[in-house]
Amino acid sequence: MSEIIRSLQRDLNDFGEDLHLIGSEKLADRHAGEHPGNFGAGAMAVPATPEAAAAVVRWCAANGVPVVPQGGRTGLVGGGISRPGELILSTARLDRIEAIDPLARTVTLGAGVTLQALQEAAAGFGLTPGIDLAARGSATIGGMIATNAGGILAFRNGVMRHQVLGIEAVMPDGSLFSDLTRVLKVSAGPDIKQLLIGSEGAYGFVTRAVLKLDSFNPMRATALVGVRDAASALALIAHFRALPALQLEGAELMWARYFRDSAGERRFDLDWLEDETAAVLLMEVSAASEAEARDALEAGLADLWERHGLTSGIVAASLDQARRFWALREESDFIYRLHPAAPSYDVSLPPGALDDYAAGLTARLKTVDPGFDAYVYGHVADGNLHISVIGKSANAAALKEPIEDAVYTGIAESGGSFSAEHGVGTEKRRAYLTYGNPARRAVAQAIKAAFDPENLFNPGKVPFRAD
Amino acid sequence: MSEIIRSLQRDLNDFGEDLHLIGSEKLADRHAGEHPGNFGAGAMAVPATPEAAAAVVRWCAANGVPVVPQGGRTGLVGGGISRPGELILSTARLDRIEAIDPLARTVTLGAGVTLQALQEAAAGFGLTPGIDLAARGSATIGGMIATNAGGILAFRNGVMRHQVLGIEAVMPDGSLFSDLTRVLKVSAGPDIKQLLIGSEGAYGFVTRAVLKLDSFNPMRATALVGVRDAASALALIAHFRALPALQLEGAELMWARYFRDSAGERRFDLDWLEDETAAVLLMEVSAASEAEARDALEAGLADLWERHGLTSGIVAASLDQARRFWALREESDFIYRLHPAAPSYDVSLPPGALDDYAAGLTARLKTVDPGFDAYVYGHVADGNLHISVIGKSANAAALKEPIEDAVYTGIAESGGSFSAEHGVGTEKRRAYLTYGNPARRAVAQAIKAAFDPENLFNPGKVPFRAD
Repeated sequence: MSEIIRSLQRDLNDFGEDLHLIGSEKLADRHAGEHPGNFGAGAMAVPATPEAAAAVVRWCAANGVPVVPQGGRTGLVGGGISRPGELILSTARLDRIEAIDPLARTVTLGAGVTLQALQEAAAGFGLTPGIDLAARGSATIGGMIATNAGGILAFRNGVMRHQVLGIEAVMPDGSLFSDLTRVLKVSAGPDIKQLLIGSEGAYGFVTRAVLKLDSFNPMRATALVGVRDAASALALIAHFRALPALQLEGAELMWARYFRDSAGERRFDLDWLEDETAAVLLMEVSAASEAEARDALEAGLADLWERHGLTSGIVAASLDQARRFWALREESDFIYRLHPAAPSYDVSLPPGALDDYAAGLTARLKTVDPGFDAYVYGHVADGNLHISVIGKSANAAALKEPIEDAVYTGIAESGGSFSAEHGVGTEKRRAYLTYGNPARRAVAQAIKAAFDPENLFNPGKVPFRAD
Repeated sequence: MSEIIRSLQRDLNDFGEDLHLIGSEKLADRHAGEHPGNFGAGAMAVPATPEAAAAVVRWCAANGVPVVPQGGRTGLVGGGISRPGELILSTARLDRIEAIDPLARTVTLGAGVTLQALQEAAAGFGLTPGIDLAARGSATIGGMIATNAGGILAFRNGVMRHQVLGIEAVMPDGSLFSDLTRVLKVSAGPDIKQLLIGSEGAYGFVTRAVLKLDSFNPMRATALVGVRDAASALALIAHFRALPALQLEGAELMWARYFRDSAGERRFDLDWLEDETAAVLLMEVSAASEAEARDALEAGLADLWERHGLTSGIVAASLDQARRFWALREESDFIYRLHPAAPSYDVSLPPGALDDYAAGLTARLKTVDPGFDAYVYGHVADGNLHISVIGKSANAAALKEPIEDAVYTGIAESGGSFSAEHGVGTEKRRAYLTYGNPARRAVAQAIKAAFDPENLFNPGKVPFRAD
C-alpha cells in the first residue's frame, strides 16, 4: 500500500464509510478504462460526499500531492492518466440522482452518475438529458462537464455547457465552490462555473450539478441514405430541420470506407447500396406517431432524391433494425481490430467546409505515405468529424507529427477546432500548443496560476503549465 | 471639450475616420438611453474597427483613464453609467453583419449590430438569432453578450451564452483577444470567452462575435388564456411542449393587475375575460401552416380547459391582433406613467416555486406598507418574473432596503437568481452583495484583480472591487 493511502487513512479516518481509499493491489481488480495509464498513481480516493472530497483535496494541498480527477474513464485522449506520487480522486460514489423537477425540467445529481442512468431516470418523466453519446453506459456527468461533451444531439440542443445550470466543485485550495442554481436565466455577474466546464480538471473537481432536461419523443423513424458528399447530406439535414411537423433526432455521416468496413464487420447487408456512394447519412426523425415519422422521412427523401443526387437508401422497418443502423455508426471499435493503434482525431469545422477538408485530408495523408487513408465519420450537422488514419506504420512514432499536421491543417483558419468533443488530455498536447487558440491558452495559464499556484490539479494536462 | 478627448485626438489621430471622439457638447445631441447617468463622463470614443478600440484601451491603460463600455444603452440597471474622468467606449460603429453562413447556421458580426438588424438579416435565410426581447430595436449584440441576455425564447433555445460561438474582445491591457470560432463543438481547454459573457464589461470590451442561428417558422397562432395560477400556466406549457407537431414560440404570464392595467392603457377590450382570473397566459405556437397552428392551439386548449380550470381565452384572428396581444406584454412603460419611478426587479425561480413566491411577495410587501402591491409578469417557462412595486412612497429612499428584502427573500434558497436577465449594473449592487452567490463573487474578484489590476474596466460595477 502506498504511503499516500496510508497517510490518508491515518489523517482522514473520521470520514469512515464516506471515504474509501484504494491502494494499488485493489486497483488491479478494477477496470482502468480507455487508457492503460489511468491507474499509474496506484492510489485512489473515492469520496461518497462532497465534504469528504473537499477534505481529500485540502489534505493534498497541505501535503503537496497532485490530484487527478476521474469519472467513467471513457476519455479517449488520456485526460485521466495518473503517475506515481499522485492521487486519483474518483466520482464513482457521488452517484446519486437527487431530484428531478419535471415542471422546471431540471435534475440535481452527483458528478458520478452515468449518462445512461440519467437517461433512464429522465425517461420516467418523458424527458431526456438532451445530450447523448456512444459511451453513455460508463461516461459520467462529471467527466462530461470536464470535457464539455458533445455527442449526437448537439446540433439541436447544444453541448454539455448548454445543459449545465449549476455546479458544485472542490477548488484546488480544498474549498467547496457551490453554485447549484436551478434556473436557466442568471445575469448576476461573472459566471465562474463556466470555467469548470471543459477545463478537464484544471480548476476544480466537480462534485454535483444541476442540468436541464428536454422533451423526449420515442415516435421515430430511421434511415440510411447514400449521398454524394457532405454538402448533399447537409442539404437533406437543412430540409428536415425546417419541417415543422417533425424533429431531427440524429444526423450522422459515414464516409464510404468507414461505412463499408463497419458493415462488413457486423455482416450488415449492403445489397441496397450503390457502388459509387461517397458517404452514407444516418438520419433519425421523430413525429406525432411512428407512422407519421416514417411517412415524413420517406416523403422528404423522395422529394429530395433527384435534386441532391441521392444514390440509395433504406428506412428501418423495426426498432431492432434502427438499432442495427446506429450500431454501424456507434460501434467503432472495429477500427482498432482491423488497424491496431490507428491514430485517431476528433475535429470540428464549419459544415460547409467539410468536403474540401475531407478531400484535402486524403491528399495530405498521401504525401506523408501514399498507402495512407482515413476512416472519416461523425456528427455532420455540427461539422464534427472523427478520423482514424490507417495504413502500414500509421502509428509509427516518426510519423506522428506529419500525420497530425495533415489532419489539423486549415482547421483553425476555417473557424474550427482541433478537438471537438474528446478534449485535450495528454495525447493532444502538441495539437493544443500548435493548433489551439493562443489567446485562450494565455489567459487559461494566467487563471491556472491564480487558482492553483502549486499546479496540483491534473498536472501535465491543460493548460500545460511547466511541470 | 474634455481634456480626455483633446488628448485622445492628439495621440490617436492616425486612426482618422476609424475613430470618432465625441465631447460633451455633441453628446447632448444623442439619446442617453434608459439611464440619465449614462453620459456622465461627457467623453465618448466610437471606434469603427477592433484595432481602433484596442488603441483607445491601450491609451486609457497608459493614462489611467477608466473605460465604460456602452452598446444600445437599453440596460435597465445602470450598467453603463459613467462619471467625469472616465471614457465611454461605444460599439455604435462596430455595426456590420459580416457574414451569414446558412448551412452552418452562424453569423459573424460586430458587437454594435442591433438585435433587430440581425433578426431582419437572418430572416432573409429563413433563420432567426434564436433570442428575442422587447428592446430588440436598440439592444446590441455586444450588450446582450455582456449581460447574458435572456428574453422570450430562452425557455426553448437557452440564453445568450448558448447562442455565442465566438468572441473577439479588447482586454483591459489593450490586447485583442480573438476566439472567433465558428463551430459549436470545441473541447480544447478552458473556454476563456465564457468569462466575457454576462460580466458586464468587467473583463473586456466585446468587439465582434459569432452567433448560432436557428430555424424561423412564421406559421403561427397566438392566444390569451385566463389561468388560475402559474401552475396551471406551466401545465399548459408542458402539454404544448410535448406535442411533436408544433413548436412553442412564446409563453408569457401576466398576473391580473399587470394585465388589466396594461389592457386599460391600450384600450384593449376585456369583455372576454372572467372577473376572477388570477393571471393571463400569452401563448404562441408555430406549425406547418397558420391553420394547423391555430387548430392545434384551439384543440389543445379545449382538451385542457376543464382539467386546468381555465377561465377564459381568445385566439388571435389576425397577425395584427396577435401583435396587439404581444404589445400588452412588451409595452410595459405604462407602469412608469401610472407609477413614476416604481422600483422594478427581475428575478428567476424554479417555475414550480412561482405561485408560492408570488403570494409571499404580496404578503411581504404589505408588511412593509399595507398599501403596497406589485405588477408581476414575465417569462413563466423560465421562472423569470419582472416585478414593479407600486403604492404611495414605494420609491422612498428609506424603503429601498425593506422592499428589496421583500422581493429577494427566498430566491437564492430556491435555486433562483436576484437578477435573471437585466444584469447587476449599479442599481443591483446591494442585491449582488447581499443575495448573490458568495462563491461566484469571491472568484470573480480574484479574476478581476488578475485581469484588470488597475480596475479601469467599468469600475463601480460587478464584481465591485473597492474603488
